[in-house]
Amino acid sequence: MINETMKELGNKRSVIREIFEFGNRRRAEIGAENVYDFSLGNPNVPAPEAVNRTMIELLQTKSDMYLHGYTSAQGAIDTREAVAADLNRRFGTAFHKDNFYMTCGAAASLKISLTALYTPRDEVIAFTPFFPEYRVFVETCGAKLVTAASDQDTFQIDFEVLKPLITEKTKAVIVNSPNNPSGVVYTAETVTKLSELLRAKEAEFGHAIYLIADEPYRELVYDGMDVPYLTKYYRNTIVCYSYSKSLSLPGERIGYILVPDEVTDAKDIYAAVCGAGRALGYVCAPSLAQHVIASCTGMVSDLNVYRLNRDLLIDNLTEFGFTCIHPDGAFYLFMKSPIADAGAFCEKAKDFDLLLVPADSFGTPGFVRIAYCVSTEMIRNSLPAFRKLAESFGL
Amino acid sequence: MINETMKELGNKRSVIREIFEFGNRRRAEIGAENVYDFSLGNPNVPAPEAVNRTMIELLQTKSDMYLHGYTSAQGAIDTREAVAADLNRRFGTAFHKDNFYMTCGAAASLKISLTALYTPRDEVIAFTPFFPEYRVFVETCGAKLVTAASDQDTFQIDFEVLKPLITEKTKAVIVNSPNNPSGVVYTAETVTKLSELLRAKEAEFGHAIYLIADEPYRELVYDGMDVPYLTKYYRNTIVCYSYSKSLSLPGERIGYILVPDEVTDAKDIYAAVCGAGRALGYVCAPSLAQHVIASCTGMVSDLNVYRLNRDLLIDNLTEFGFTCIHPDGAFYLFMKSPIADAGAFCEKAKDFDLLLVPADSFGTPGFVRIAYCVSTEMIRNSLPAFRKLAESFGL
Repeated sequence: MINETMKELGNKRSVIREIFEFGNRRRAEIGAENVYDFSLGNPNVPAPEAVNRTMIELLQTKSDMYLHGYTSAQGAIDTREAVAADLNRRFGTAFHKDNFYMTCGAAASLKISLTALYTPRDEVIAFTPFFPEYRVFVETCGAKLVTAASDQDTFQIDFEVLKPLITEKTKAVIVNSPNNPSGVVYTAETVTKLSELLRAKEAEFGHAIYLIADEPYRELVYDGMDVPYLTKYYRNTIVCYSYSKSLSLPGERIGYILVPDEVTDAKDIYAAVCGAGRALGYVCAPSLAQHVIASCTGMVSDLNVYRLNRDLLIDNLTEFGFTCIHPDGAFYLFMKSPIADAGAFCEKAKDFDLLLVPADSFGTPGFVRIAYCVSTEMIRNSLPAFRKLAESFGL
Repeated sequence: MINETMKELGNKRSVIREIFEFGNRRRAEIGAENVYDFSLGNPNVPAPEAVNRTMIELLQTKSDMYLHGYTSAQGAIDTREAVAADLNRRFGTAFHKDNFYMTCGAAASLKISLTALYTPRDEVIAFTPFFPEYRVFVETCGAKLVTAASDQDTFQIDFEVLKPLITEKTKAVIVNSPNNPSGVVYTAETVTKLSELLRAKEAEFGHAIYLIADEPYRELVYDGMDVPYLTKYYRNTIVCYSYSKSLSLPGERIGYILVPDEVTDAKDIYAAVCGAGRALGYVCAPSLAQHVIASCTGMVSDLNVYRLNRDLLIDNLTEFGFTCIHPDGAFYLFMKSPIADAGAFCEKAKDFDLLLVPADSFGTPGFVRIAYCVSTEMIRNSLPAFRKLAESFGL
């Protein structure tokens, strides 16, 4: 007599949440300092100093009506203008405030965009590995999620796999670069080839195929790596952004949807985004967070800790005999399981109090995700455990 | 090729928004002080002083991980414990933290609850007048909204109207007391009769009928009026709450869903609420706002201005010859249009720069809504215009 799909979604804890809960029990038993928990993608680097300073200044100087009152459903005008100006400065684009719809973070951006685009029989393509909630968002819209395996060495797009999956029913393709969980950034070559393929398929089928760019990790890149801005490569790109990672504000739920003018039916899609936000119960994005974004968009938390953590892990795990995908961005290390069953490997890792996530739920069996948004000290302390884990598998 | 329902929802501005935009144009033409805009339900009373003080204290003393990190999807434990304790103190209930799911405000609470409960062929009953978004939330879930006219003198429930509308398909009944737009509070007698009727219908049809209490205006009542707490009258009550009005924080999007233990299938419904939140793209309610609620739940903005405004309007409009429903709560005055066509009446009111909302979109033609969450000075200044409006209709 209630919605069984929703009940199941609520009861079925994600693999990541299960591991995190195991960690909580283990921390209680042997002390937090002895549990090496690499399960959660919760930024551990503080927000840029300007974020809290701006919040306090706003609270001390602005009226409550301004601070806490409704903004328009699309978002406060000064916020949207600031976001457009920042992107235009960084990427040489020509966006304006009316291309933006402020949201409660990337999950809301994705769900609203997918709802806005959805028509019966739609298919949406995602590349493995992908954030498991994509399946939830797509399927609860009524669409079908089609998964395309990435190249298993580079985790760039495998175009031979992708090509036959694009059909007359394909409404959208979701890309996530830098990627959760692989840490891989799509090269300009990958993005160019993808754009050419999608344009050819649009011509073949006579309708738009939208590229949904899920970009919460855009600014989390290392070694001066360039992350191609997709709207410049492919006209029918819709950007779903969140400040969760760049500003270390995942709990505040603040992000946006960008529908550029050049997108096919841009005005209709923007209207449908507004309508979907309304239907899904989003009235406006949180107002204080919006006002902070007006000042702080484009800033990035200090990435030095993440870079240090990444290098420390890669260097040591490689030395211990593990095979890792080199991450150019995000804060995840993607490691090959030394046995086919990554779940069994992660169970074994628990014996050394190492909490790793098997990537099966991301669509890539045989790999594990190591979230290195943790203290460098914990990583240093975990290295002997990783060494023993490697030895236990004869590496 | 996109979702036409969403496009239409996005393009079709609400009547209220249309009037507000007209007001913006008119303010630019003749000055804001000459436009008497009673269209929007945006609280104009500041938040309780403790709200901003608590926010600043939190920002100055707590870690960024605590302030801005993810909370669990259900909400921070201390927040849910504080909310339970406050309600238990005020209403003699025995709620605990696991009855609560923190949300992004009342719209999210309603949409998530309706999604959690929905099964095919469901009907949901609402009483006119009702907040127009109810229709959007119910219909985009796939359910049918059935409307029941209230008693046209008291705007309490008309049980002769309601009784035949409850059928085997009825999944839920939404009540909103204090009511937007009528300002009416359901009496204990009304609530008792409703509970008895629903219990009888549950027995007749052999399944639960859920009462959804949409309660953002609970604390906005005058003259010591008692607002019956519905869970104490009817076991299958689910409460959808928002701090938008009580704490004057509509932009911050913070509220909760309460599923008491005694509700039929409570655990399954709570799980379905968690699943629906997930499917709709809500990851957690905004974290800083949650932490503020842990300290400030149960506080209420200073209602003296609203009370003063209400009395000033009622006394004068009645003297001018208008007929008003006496509002015991919320910040809306419901007034009978002196002509059958309330839209035409509101058009005429614009000639005097009085911006009123015809209640047709609330399901009650022949009435207008006057939102008095405005400055008392504006009300004083508007009185000559109201007098002229009355005279123009021969009152």
